[in-house]
Amino acid sequence: MRLVTYTPNDTSEAPARLGAQLDDRVVDLAAVARAAGTDLPGDLLSLIRAGQPALDAAKALLESGIPADAVHELADVTLEAPLRPGKIIGVGLNYVEHVAESHRTLDTDREIPDRPVLFSKPATAVTGPGRPILHNADLTKQLDWECELAVVIGRTAFRVSEDDAMEHVFGYSIINDISARDQRRSGQWFFSKGQDSYAPFGPAVVTADEIPDPLNLNLSLRVNGDTKQDSNTRHMLFKIQRLIADISSGVTLEPGDVIATGSPSGVGAGHVPPQFLQPGDLVEATIERIGTLANPVVDAR
Amino acid sequence: MRLVTYTPNDTSEAPARLGAQLDDRVVDLAAVARAAGTDLPGDLLSLIRAGQPALDAAKALLESGIPADAVHELADVTLEAPLRPGKIIGVGLNYVEHVAESHRTLDTDREIPDRPVLFSKPATAVTGPGRPILHNADLTKQLDWECELAVVIGRTAFRVSEDDAMEHVFGYSIINDISARDQRRSGQWFFSKGQDSYAPFGPAVVTADEIPDPLNLNLSLRVNGDTKQDSNTRHMLFKIQRLIADISSGVTLEPGDVIATGSPSGVGAGHVPPQFLQPGDLVEATIERIGTLANPVVDAR
Repeated sequence: MRLVTYTPNDTSEAPARLGAQLDDRVVDLAAVARAAGTDLPGDLLSLIRAGQPALDAAKALLESGIPADAVHELADVTLEAPLRPGKIIGVGLNYVEHVAESHRTLDTDREIPDRPVLFSKPATAVTGPGRPILHNADLTKQLDWECELAVVIGRTAFRVSEDDAMEHVFGYSIINDISARDQRRSGQWFFSKGQDSYAPFGPAVVTADEIPDPLNLNLSLRVNGDTKQDSNTRHMLFKIQRLIADISSGVTLEPGDVIATGSPSGVGAGHVPPQFLQPGDLVEATIERIGTLANPVVDAR
Repeated sequence: MRLVTYTPNDTSEAPARLGAQLDDRVVDLAAVARAAGTDLPGDLLSLIRAGQPALDAAKALLESGIPADAVHELADVTLEAPLRPGKIIGVGLNYVEHVAESHRTLDTDREIPDRPVLFSKPATAVTGPGRPILHNADLTKQLDWECELAVVIGRTAFRVSEDDAMEHVFGYSIINDISARDQRRSGQWFFSKGQDSYAPFGPAVVTADEIPDPLNLNLSLRVNGDTKQDSNTRHMLFKIQRLIADISSGVTLEPGDVIATGSPSGVGAGHVPPQFLQPGDLVEATIERIGTLANPVVDAR
């Protein structure tokens, strides 16, 4: 199932709703449930927390017939970030060629890391598809992109083995891991990567059953139509299983938490000469089977 | 007001309650409100979000008389972490002598940082007073302490000036910023500082009106009774106003967010030879006007 959080364009100030996207239509899951005399969680985080029975119920309802008034045209809704994660854990230097370009142009080591390099972005950094990435020239002249596969946690994970790790995954999405490269502070990435709007997230969360091999997905990123990144998740240095096992060896992963699994090469800082985002740019991050997350860059001084 | 989150020892499985501590008694704020035919938020985060009117109402209720059945002896309750923050932003290298000891013994620069060094700890790292700090010898042989003044945000702050910054503070508490020094990853501190139980928090949040000068508070830390840290918040390199202005220049601070304002010198890694926490140790972090946050270290392999 392809789950989205959306607001119908003809309702103002309404709370966002949970939808299932079927091609170019969005089905209001709560409305389908109501019509069937039952109910479903009204937001994605609640659906995740409700576990597999709720997901199965949602699927069964969609298959048993959808009342016309529960359906919106995709063009008639605004998609939001799928959810507000409790935490977003980012993985640095997780594609070999990106390790090399980061060493050339940033301050990171030449060597392949022997353990996942972990950092975090706060929930306040999340923004939705189509929403602006804030370019504040008073703070940065080096605003950069990173297209990343986002793993959405479904079940609490603490000290989970690699073998069991994938049972804790709810689904997959896209995070564009935006950085102000010149706001690293004594090497720490939090302020560089944690500012408001620096985590565009979406456009949908695709449930794990629909992505049989998350380690074989093309991912790419374009700025104003020019391809800057083009790789495949098979090139991840530490695979998803290892990331979940490693993180959960010390940090509890909760339903709705997100792991941003790292960027392939082709970031702006890695180009010669470096290229950085400017107001007016459009950034589009695409991952196979998930879709495209497009965000304009706006002047936010 | 001195606000605590607590569970009465004679009730099991009850949700934690919001209390006002008066010497060695804890007053159930919701019960006081009920007895007066009104109501108050039932948890600290809700009280913070309800703003100054709710805080004023709570104070007035406490002054108008407290029914006996709303009062617990402090010895009859278990204190919890005051709240679950949306985010905890830590400040590294924010006391001059700690900059020097970190350069000697860790991998940080000799120079005083020219901007606050920011990192974060996830909400899952929070633990309450008296709760164990988890020592997993499979992951770390360098578990370290840092006594820090915690600033609890009261009102949303984005692009706030230093002059206005203190209006966004709800109150103050203590965070013991626990680190596994040997789990820094390519310099990033997240996994080193973000593991479960690595953010003991409490024992209370003291409202800002009761701490007229947060930049003149003695703070100290003892391990098994031996003083390891002993300083004063006046020695902070970047003061609270500057931290709020700096963080909020890019990152929205929300009610209930916490800034851990950095550690004075005397951390375990700074001792010659280095000293680290071991199972069986008791760590006590004390800040003037706030109290003592005591946590045992337990073997959690």
